[in-house]
Amino acid sequence: MNRTWSDLALGEVWTGAPITVSAEEIVGFGHAFDPQAQHTDPEAAASGRFGTLIASGWHVAALAMRAFIGAKPFGDTPVVGMGVDELRWHAPVRPGDTLTVSREVEMLRRSESKPDRGIVRWKVNVANQDEATVMTLLVTAQMPV
Amino acid sequence: MNRTWSDLALGEVWTGAPITVSAEEIVGFGHAFDPQAQHTDPEAAASGRFGTLIASGWHVAALAMRAFIGAKPFGDTPVVGMGVDELRWHAPVRPGDTLTVSREVEMLRRSESKPDRGIVRWKVNVANQDEATVMTLLVTAQMPV
Repeated sequence: MNRTWSDLALGEVWTGAPITVSAEEIVGFGHAFDPQAQHTDPEAAASGRFGTLIASGWHVAALAMRAFIGAKPFGDTPVVGMGVDELRWHAPVRPGDTLTVSREVEMLRRSESKPDRGIVRWKVNVANQDEATVMTLLVTAQMPV
Repeated sequence: MNRTWSDLALGEVWTGAPITVSAEEIVGFGHAFDPQAQHTDPEAAASGRFGTLIASGWHVAALAMRAFIGAKPFGDTPVVGMGVDELRWHAPVRPGDTLTVSREVEMLRRSESKPDRGIVRWKVNVANQDEATVMTLLVTAQMPV
């Protein structure tokens, strides 16, 4: 049974299982997409501004997506991204940090041009094991109604 | 010689070398971060809304970062992301598409709290081989002055 846009409710909150980020994952993403020493070189990172490796901000965003989509909250119903607003990286993510992603349904509207689709905006929050918020964003997506 | 924030000029445009996205890369990123059939399953994608595999929007964002950072426009000077606004995925990215990333310096200001850092906001545009815009965003980052 696949959930669709019509099953969403304003204010509904989804919270994911905690995910721990390893140094290897940070370095792998860094080499692939954000090759800067603070993401790829433990020794250089140790003497840099943050004192350790930190995850690329785009890696944190991708992990927030994986936490949600990997849990298959809608079964096989596609969730097609339209845009992101007000993304903020509040604090660094370091090797061994455990992240918890939550998403609150902030807006729901029917597509004007495609009545078989609905539009949803979630407020996404990513917190670490110390309950510090590391990233927030608003993501808008389309789904079948 | 590493460039820093002080070397940036308002309106300065950087354009990257074209990058071609393979089906394998799309599927790899999909499995890792956005496991939906439109990103991971060529057969299911063929009968879906887009008719082919399409890249995860977060993959397109990560590729735009790689194009820029991989070109080392500042040498070893760290570029630390603060946030993203007005990200829009305008059109799908399909296997074999060739993307060109450009970035225009839209805002420059000295950090108020940390005078040894400057803040820059770029307007990022990603276009495909047909000159269709596939993604736009504003990204704000900190750099040493």
